[in-house]
Amino acid sequence: MDPPPREVYRAMLEGLCARSRIAAVLVDPSGRIQWASSFAGEDLAQAFDVGRSFVEAIDSVLRLEPGRTDALSTEPQSELRVSAKGVFYRHSLIPLEVAEPGSTLHWFLDVTHEKRLEEDFLHNLYQLKSMKEIVDILYESLSTPEVVYLCLIAVTAQVGFGFNRAFFLQVTGGRMRGRFGIGPSNHEEANAIWSRLAALNFRSLREVYEDFTRSGGVPDPRTQEIAVRLDFELKRFGWGGQASQELPGILGVLARGKPARVHASDPGSEVDRTLFSLLATDVVAVVPLFVRGELAGVIIADNLITRKPITDVDLNVLKTFAGYAGVALDRSHLYDELRDHVAKLQSANETL
Amino acid sequence: MDPPPREVYRAMLEGLCARSRIAAVLVDPSGRIQWASSFAGEDLAQAFDVGRSFVEAIDSVLRLEPGRTDALSTEPQSELRVSAKGVFYRHSLIPLEVAEPGSTLHWFLDVTHEKRLEEDFLHNLYQLKSMKEIVDILYESLSTPEVVYLCLIAVTAQVGFGFNRAFFLQVTGGRMRGRFGIGPSNHEEANAIWSRLAALNFRSLREVYEDFTRSGGVPDPRTQEIAVRLDFELKRFGWGGQASQELPGILGVLARGKPARVHASDPGSEVDRTLFSLLATDVVAVVPLFVRGELAGVIIADNLITRKPITDVDLNVLKTFAGYAGVALDRSHLYDELRDHVAKLQSANETL
Repeated sequence: MDPPPREVYRAMLEGLCARSRIAAVLVDPSGRIQWASSFAGEDLAQAFDVGRSFVEAIDSVLRLEPGRTDALSTEPQSELRVSAKGVFYRHSLIPLEVAEPGSTLHWFLDVTHEKRLEEDFLHNLYQLKSMKEIVDILYESLSTPEVVYLCLIAVTAQVGFGFNRAFFLQVTGGRMRGRFGIGPSNHEEANAIWSRLAALNFRSLREVYEDFTRSGGVPDPRTQEIAVRLDFELKRFGWGGQASQELPGILGVLARGKPARVHASDPGSEVDRTLFSLLATDVVAVVPLFVRGELAGVIIADNLITRKPITDVDLNVLKTFAGYAGVALDRSHLYDELRDHVAKLQSANETL
Repeated sequence: MDPPPREVYRAMLEGLCARSRIAAVLVDPSGRIQWASSFAGEDLAQAFDVGRSFVEAIDSVLRLEPGRTDALSTEPQSELRVSAKGVFYRHSLIPLEVAEPGSTLHWFLDVTHEKRLEEDFLHNLYQLKSMKEIVDILYESLSTPEVVYLCLIAVTAQVGFGFNRAFFLQVTGGRMRGRFGIGPSNHEEANAIWSRLAALNFRSLREVYEDFTRSGGVPDPRTQEIAVRLDFELKRFGWGGQASQELPGILGVLARGKPARVHASDPGSEVDRTLFSLLATDVVAVVPLFVRGELAGVIIADNLITRKPITDVDLNVLKTFAGYAGVALDRSHLYDELRDHVAKLQSANETL
């Protein structure tokens, strides 16, 4: 058979590009666009006019994303670019001497779908790694504060996932008191903490914890200070009555026992007002922790710095890590009971 | 500028195909190959000779994978094919009337890298889902057997990930006894169980557990029977001495406390011989569970049916889920101690 004529090659190239969401651009030795595939992508359709400077064309529609990884690419020389509409393109090139010495073929493959998958993948991998680490620590260590701290680090240490800040409040004898707080309390601290986390290149929660407490202090003194100022006698606010579940704001969430978002603008009690004023935030995620039917603690988290809305996925991640804190609290309560019983037993023996 | 000549279109098409790992094939209305890109892939290079029947060519090098999903594809009409060397290709086509009415352009994109990522993704997602479910149950339920059962289900319920069978043995007072066993004990059972799991379309571990125990019995009676026949007085085999860590086979693994693979052909004690004879298997994964320094249990898992080798990843997954069983055991020991102390306290009070 005869080799295909020009129009057939053109049609094959156009068909393949259109279906694979590829914009192919032939650039002559002077840097002008000599030909471009009629890619259907809304973003790029108008940019690559024949005769135009290629560099000008590309910069007008696609910006470089040097900070973004492209783990799915098997091409060493490709770069990732993003359009104004948030579509990700992988930009590759080869010399095309057949056209003219110095000519280059560039192409832009739409990898938005792959990028989303990759982000989900990394998010899941991070959660999985953190959960495994906490199970190991839960299983090997008997220190409840350590487990709770690591849970707070898990939901705050990965910039872009989860939360900016997280607090753990313990409930004993009807009193709810802040025990730990973690995360930056202003933009300056955020820059310092997040650069440090990036430099640490996150290997384990414990490593982050040890790095932040190396100086002997708590990880974030300002946030810790806010935590310890959270101190509420719950009974004063109608807690414990039959109608607890009907209470407004945070107290209602605690009584109903299900994780929820609470807004500063929602109707709330004095607890909400004090909390939102100390946290200086608009919205928090609240996860109550129960130990055998009794409210034993609360985890509260927010995005003070990034102001990123709290999604259901975020709430779900928080709930999972709070579960580990719950297990640790449960065990610590069992220990306390055991200790009390042993003490009583000893005093009974002494009486004998 | 003039539109590019034929050789330039051809070079662009070839260049794009080679770099993107695409084999493009033009098929004439009679089903014969009219042109094929010179794809560098070792698998396909020789198959697509001009003039050959396309169907014959494709069937000679690529088999259909109807059971495999292709979640990464955004093309509704593509199919997944795999070469003898295990390279995955996504096969797409469009009519190419420009060549001749009835002509078709087919192309095969190498998606092996994406498939691997997708499998890792699904594997991680399954682990994550299972771990979250177990944290919730650990946190909400006080039943140790339930947690242990769900851990065994987690490592056996997803066909293709993890193990075919898993056993939990409890160690108390120097005696190691099988408590639970799960998974098919022959090919017939495997077909029945795995078809049922596929039909259930796995939503939660608890659902699988409830489905398998609906009749009121244990999930897998034959495997459960093997479990309860595993009963060893560890002291009889030199356990507990200074040299425990030097013991051969399973006992050495238990003493050293680190998860490991143990082969039937390894030097072992009577424990190994009895176990391998009852399990009728060549190799097992062994994960010791410690509760405050004392050996409290062991999880043993194998691939009786598929004979799939036990990888480090499998061992790691087993270790993670065993961690939850360890936490549950730890809590149950605390309860036992508490109960004993309360009993002693009562008897002391009665004596008073």
